[in-house]
Amino acid sequence: MAMAAVRGYGAARHVATISPRAAVAGRSFYTSRRVHMPAVKAFNKDEPAAPVLKTSIPGPKASEAIKELDAVFETRSINMIADYTQSAGNYIADPDGNVLLDVYAQIASIPVGYNNSELRKIASTPEMIDAIVNRPALGNFPSHNWAELLKSGVLKVAPKGLDNVYTAMAGSDANEIAYKAAFMYRRQQERGGPEVDFTAQELETVMNNQSPGSAQLSILSFKTSFHGRLFGCLSTTRSKPIHKLDIPAFDWPQATFPQLKYPLEQHVEENAKAEQASLDEVEHLIKTWHLPPAAVVVEPIQSEGGDNHASPAFFQKLRALTTKHNILLIVDEVQTGVGATGKFWAHDHWNLQEPPDMVTFSKKAQTAGYYYRSKDLRPNKPYRQFNTWMGDPSKVLLFRGIIDEIERHDLVNHTAKVGDYLYGKLESLAGKYPEHFQNLRGKGQGTFIAFDNPKRDAFLAKAKTFGINIGGSGAEAVRLRPMLIFQEHHADILIEALEKVAKAL
Amino acid sequence: MAMAAVRGYGAARHVATISPRAAVAGRSFYTSRRVHMPAVKAFNKDEPAAPVLKTSIPGPKASEAIKELDAVFETRSINMIADYTQSAGNYIADPDGNVLLDVYAQIASIPVGYNNSELRKIASTPEMIDAIVNRPALGNFPSHNWAELLKSGVLKVAPKGLDNVYTAMAGSDANEIAYKAAFMYRRQQERGGPEVDFTAQELETVMNNQSPGSAQLSILSFKTSFHGRLFGCLSTTRSKPIHKLDIPAFDWPQATFPQLKYPLEQHVEENAKAEQASLDEVEHLIKTWHLPPAAVVVEPIQSEGGDNHASPAFFQKLRALTTKHNILLIVDEVQTGVGATGKFWAHDHWNLQEPPDMVTFSKKAQTAGYYYRSKDLRPNKPYRQFNTWMGDPSKVLLFRGIIDEIERHDLVNHTAKVGDYLYGKLESLAGKYPEHFQNLRGKGQGTFIAFDNPKRDAFLAKAKTFGINIGGSGAEAVRLRPMLIFQEHHADILIEALEKVAKAL
Repeated sequence: MAMAAVRGYGAARHVATISPRAAVAGRSFYTSRRVHMPAVKAFNKDEPAAPVLKTSIPGPKASEAIKELDAVFETRSINMIADYTQSAGNYIADPDGNVLLDVYAQIASIPVGYNNSELRKIASTPEMIDAIVNRPALGNFPSHNWAELLKSGVLKVAPKGLDNVYTAMAGSDANEIAYKAAFMYRRQQERGGPEVDFTAQELETVMNNQSPGSAQLSILSFKTSFHGRLFGCLSTTRSKPIHKLDIPAFDWPQATFPQLKYPLEQHVEENAKAEQASLDEVEHLIKTWHLPPAAVVVEPIQSEGGDNHASPAFFQKLRALTTKHNILLIVDEVQTGVGATGKFWAHDHWNLQEPPDMVTFSKKAQTAGYYYRSKDLRPNKPYRQFNTWMGDPSKVLLFRGIIDEIERHDLVNHTAKVGDYLYGKLESLAGKYPEHFQNLRGKGQGTFIAFDNPKRDAFLAKAKTFGINIGGSGAEAVRLRPMLIFQEHHADILIEALEKVAKAL
Repeated sequence: MAMAAVRGYGAARHVATISPRAAVAGRSFYTSRRVHMPAVKAFNKDEPAAPVLKTSIPGPKASEAIKELDAVFETRSINMIADYTQSAGNYIADPDGNVLLDVYAQIASIPVGYNNSELRKIASTPEMIDAIVNRPALGNFPSHNWAELLKSGVLKVAPKGLDNVYTAMAGSDANEIAYKAAFMYRRQQERGGPEVDFTAQELETVMNNQSPGSAQLSILSFKTSFHGRLFGCLSTTRSKPIHKLDIPAFDWPQATFPQLKYPLEQHVEENAKAEQASLDEVEHLIKTWHLPPAAVVVEPIQSEGGDNHASPAFFQKLRALTTKHNILLIVDEVQTGVGATGKFWAHDHWNLQEPPDMVTFSKKAQTAGYYYRSKDLRPNKPYRQFNTWMGDPSKVLLFRGIIDEIERHDLVNHTAKVGDYLYGKLESLAGKYPEHFQNLRGKGQGTFIAFDNPKRDAFLAKAKTFGINIGGSGAEAVRLRPMLIFQEHHADILIEALEKVAKAL
């Protein structure tokens, strides 16, 4: 940690900010002025007090790094080259000395800040070293303390009603193995229970990828959803053509996700109708689709697809509908989970009577997997849900450290409060610049906030020139995905920059 | 490392061995006798000189651990509970104090031994800590030194002719993204080149999982192959029904893999015919399958499917055949790669004129991904081959350390030699107990050796009672998958135990 810099707390200090004029011209020079910083301590003491801009982005060193990398690795999707050794807390640094306030956080996957000191300690414990150098095949040779590790970490934050876990590598495979569990469960029920064995015909046909051995079933997902990009989960992903073009897909059904209108309080009846229409479509598809759905998969907030929300009532009815038709409900919390919505799991906002059957997770958890509702969702025989690694204890250790850090600082409640503060400020901005902050959404959902901007891509690019790293989603959305250590004084910096962006566009 | 124990080198020492009689009775007690150990140093100085058996397996502590784990995690596939803090080099320990010679090595995924001291050092470097706590979204925010890290590690051992890499999480997703690259490449060619854009119809149909947006193409694989268990790669996996039952699959083609007869020198003509028949079938399927193959995927040695080999000539002709029909060739080196066959990549044995188009890797690399032959296999637009993490720099660092360790000890050549030694000993055993060591195979393939045993599962279980952890594959195969630090004195211990197993069965 060579971060020299001013510290992120104190009353008033010098802050380097970029001149908007220079930014417009694509050049960068700095003015130094006194700004008032809130008298609160940043969670990470190495954070600068504000963004630092020294060059355009990419600067000369970053450009050189991209050129070198392009010879051997994909570079066309690079947003910025980072220097993680110089990044701290909410701030991402680059090799040219630029330091941006990061409200994108590695596509919503950094929970407690860059170079979090507690995680750095955990990363160098004997337990972590052991986990790194002796990676087990967890299904065959789990460590004697694997249960204890799960129970003191991943399972400590298990969603209500779900007490089992299957660990995995990332969000995509977490969803796929949840789908596999759903297919095996459904076929087991059709067969007459876990004790009924496979038929000779099933054993034979499956080796030819034919039914009845290969199930003629489906997973029902929603339009504009995102569930990953492996072949199975990609068949349920419906956000953008670029994710799907040229990849063979299963002929699985999709229902319209309610497209709510904002502000919500002005469209109550309309929105309720949209939600009911969506539920009716789900039920119709369940009853009629030629490959019957074994499960419905849904994100609490469609994240990649543009931050599309639905009400708790919608999800309660969706749970009731799936129960009624004996279809499993998989809640994909890969992006929404681990605190950012002001609850540990976004579906905690729904107050469900009956929990989801499975909840998938990854990103901020740094590990991945699915929680499931009881042992009856385990396949009836071993080696049906299996692979070499089945997850990674080193990442499970890291998640335990993240959970401890979240508890120590009460970061979920913290994020709920900071989210309210941020939302209020954004509402004011939206009042002032309505064309730039359309359909503001995420009220009461922590910092999981978004708005639409018709010049979205220019908006994101411009934000960098004012010291903010920010991401988009869907066609026109700007999505805010700060870390859980995002505070009110960061919100102030963000709001100030966003206003500059709006003025500059 | 609390491994007390005698050390794995020296001329003659006391070694605890289990009495076969006690083993047969399912009990364990120890005799101490003087045995001659070879005067060579073990790569890991903390290794015991021989297996240590203190209880049956699972012993009381392991049984307790399984019971505790079963409440929250799948346990029916557990082979043994391990205590990695007490494992060293080629030896895996359990919580009851048993220490077995491990020639299964976490399903062939431990390259340079448990608690390798060099890897332990690497695991606690600032670079590793940085990689663990600041995991990037590699496609968007790679670190400024990502190119250097790739070039000094993963790419240093790139197969001949392949100079680009796409990193991934594990073997399954490595294969799936290679398949995706193949589909995108094929459709791009059909469209008329990378500059030709998608049609409106493609953009529309793909969102409904329909053609032409979703490609009506396939991946051709071989019977008895294993390529992973996600939905796409599982459609190419053809080893066992248990992997595939109830999971929807793509209607993709499979060709018969040549089933060679042993000993090879007694079945030259027959085997050549089997290989030609397989190639003819591949060509027939390429020409006629209703979903044209974009690629053929093949393992150099079908590993999970029973250690099925084919000759270099077979693979040379397969390469020629795929080139002739403008089909990509993907070589799946997930299990065969990183030294165990006596070459760094098993396909190095083939002396191909033209390299494969893609080579996938994982397991002993501890990271995963695919090497590809040139930048023209990159999709024509960004975000087509993308996901949040796209691999993991901490694992890429680990692979670099593994490569350094392999080079420092010349472990690939070492494994070639030890493999020859081991194969010779097994040949003698097979002469003595032909019914227990059938179809011995893997000559000249390092320690990647297997044989068939009609009582295979009993054989594997019995081996534990003589201090050996060993795995199976296919229907009847016993597969040897020692680490690269396996030495002649380990081979002697193994051979002695295998003879005891044969006698006891």
